[in-house]
Amino acid sequence: MSVAPGSARTPGFNAGPIVAVVGAGVVGRSWARAFAGAGFPVRLFDPSAEAARAAVATIAAELSEDVGLGLLPAGAASEVVGRITVCGRLADAVAGVDYVQESGPEDLAVKQSILGELVAATAGDVILASSTSTLDPNLIAAGSPGAVRFLVVHPVNPPHLIPVVEILAGKATDPAIVVRACEFLRQVGQQPVVLHRFVTGFLLNRLQAALLREAIALVVDGVADAAAVDTVVRDGLGLRWAVLGPFGVAATNADGGVGDYLTRFRGPLMALMSSLSPTPELSATAIARLETSTAEMIGGMPLDRLRRSRDVFVHRVRALKRELAPMEGG
Amino acid sequence: MSVAPGSARTPGFNAGPIVAVVGAGVVGRSWARAFAGAGFPVRLFDPSAEAARAAVATIAAELSEDVGLGLLPAGAASEVVGRITVCGRLADAVAGVDYVQESGPEDLAVKQSILGELVAATAGDVILASSTSTLDPNLIAAGSPGAVRFLVVHPVNPPHLIPVVEILAGKATDPAIVVRACEFLRQVGQQPVVLHRFVTGFLLNRLQAALLREAIALVVDGVADAAAVDTVVRDGLGLRWAVLGPFGVAATNADGGVGDYLTRFRGPLMALMSSLSPTPELSATAIARLETSTAEMIGGMPLDRLRRSRDVFVHRVRALKRELAPMEGG
Repeated sequence: MSVAPGSARTPGFNAGPIVAVVGAGVVGRSWARAFAGAGFPVRLFDPSAEAARAAVATIAAELSEDVGLGLLPAGAASEVVGRITVCGRLADAVAGVDYVQESGPEDLAVKQSILGELVAATAGDVILASSTSTLDPNLIAAGSPGAVRFLVVHPVNPPHLIPVVEILAGKATDPAIVVRACEFLRQVGQQPVVLHRFVTGFLLNRLQAALLREAIALVVDGVADAAAVDTVVRDGLGLRWAVLGPFGVAATNADGGVGDYLTRFRGPLMALMSSLSPTPELSATAIARLETSTAEMIGGMPLDRLRRSRDVFVHRVRALKRELAPMEGG
Repeated sequence: MSVAPGSARTPGFNAGPIVAVVGAGVVGRSWARAFAGAGFPVRLFDPSAEAARAAVATIAAELSEDVGLGLLPAGAASEVVGRITVCGRLADAVAGVDYVQESGPEDLAVKQSILGELVAATAGDVILASSTSTLDPNLIAAGSPGAVRFLVVHPVNPPHLIPVVEILAGKATDPAIVVRACEFLRQVGQQPVVLHRFVTGFLLNRLQAALLREAIALVVDGVADAAAVDTVVRDGLGLRWAVLGPFGVAATNADGGVGDYLTRFRGPLMALMSSLSPTPELSATAIARLETSTAEMIGGMPLDRLRRSRDVFVHRVRALKRELAPMEGG
């Protein structure tokens, strides 16, 4: 989804925020598409000018494919790509912008170095956001005079399709910067979720790893095949999780809500949670078993086709959520 | 969803399988509705005749509500209810049926006793299925002459809405009985998934507990609020999980599929999985915190309305899956 129908578009907002995306890898590229798709002018910088140009070509190809799939109106592709300007120098990319999304390599020293450049090249009210998925913002911004306007804005890949971003401020971050960042991201069509403190994997990767760990253990231990585990999620738990998170599910499972649920089922729930599998070894044998079992499930379907059908499905489910509005979000 | 549009309906199958449901609690009631909704005549027995009659009244009310919500065609409610016959004696309920779904109390001795009665009252080729969510079929059928035709068929609540059933045979179960049970359940519109051996919580409750455990820990440890955790699932992970299970997601996250993914990300994935939270204590303070945080998320929305909007959403997502057929199932 590129032109976010649910976003609160300010009349004439094309004169509004200008965005710089620093780093044109998979994440930066998808951010550029998401920002431009929501109507914002984007300046894209990568130390490799070739990488930046290739990223724009990939965005154009993806957009055309989405037009072909009926996910976007004809004409949207060139309109969105037209909002992206490749800049050969970092200073040119960030000159006069309101928001910078850094999507460089996942390395503390590199992130610190980029932040230093950004602080030097931008005015004191420009929001400096990092796409990091693993690093503590307090470490990235340690000792930086820009710490006050720096925060983590971690997207779900790909951000133009999955609308959640994780927001994590450092101890030195101005709370007003967090508020402004969240407001802007909502305009981009994103659902910002705020973490109160750093934790490995943030929310999304932790929750995903919790499910994946148990799923892997069930297959490696011979309890069931990958197809059985995936069916249980896809046609069972996932149908509910697309509309209610774990607390919403728990609340609707007992007449008195989540407190009633946890009190009433405390014993068996504690026993079940305590019986969950430890982290499996992921030996070569285990990986081979998981690969074979997954291949049996997918059959001969090419992964590209699977990805496209996933994207069409997610696009349609989001439209359904906007139509039904079962909970806020979409 | 009661009249399962995706089910493989044999022409003239109304002359086919007759089903007995033993136990008219929440699970038995929903089974009766699912079987009758798929076109099968249902005999419903409960030791309390009043409970059985109340269950039918509840089914009728639920069906009328679904007609009102546009989920079922007008007339469907009385048609479905008309297929359910309440029987005052177990022997009458199971006489001449092809399949028995036992949904009695979750107690080993009670399940063994009911199985004894069912074995005595049915012919040697009648499938005897138990809805148990916690008991090992080898224990329930230990020493029973009916062990050969006994198996666990554990539904997801409510089975008329969520189409996954977990199948677990005992060591003595005839494999042909498992095949016949799966075929029948597909006719009912269910996706049977087969477990190779008993494990606490089977697949679905384990996977759900894995996600819930981490979700609870994140809120109790003060990392984020329930609303943030639920948004990450509902507008992030859940959008994918409604179309791809954890192995499908992993396979589409690396160009070489799941083996490539697990090999390439083995280090950080193992580190993340090993950093996941242990089982939280669920003290009164923790439960109060979870309750307050969930209440802030839900706001004033009545749980009944939340359940209804969930049901409408799941119904529509299933229709979308049948239309798009992204993976098998729906």
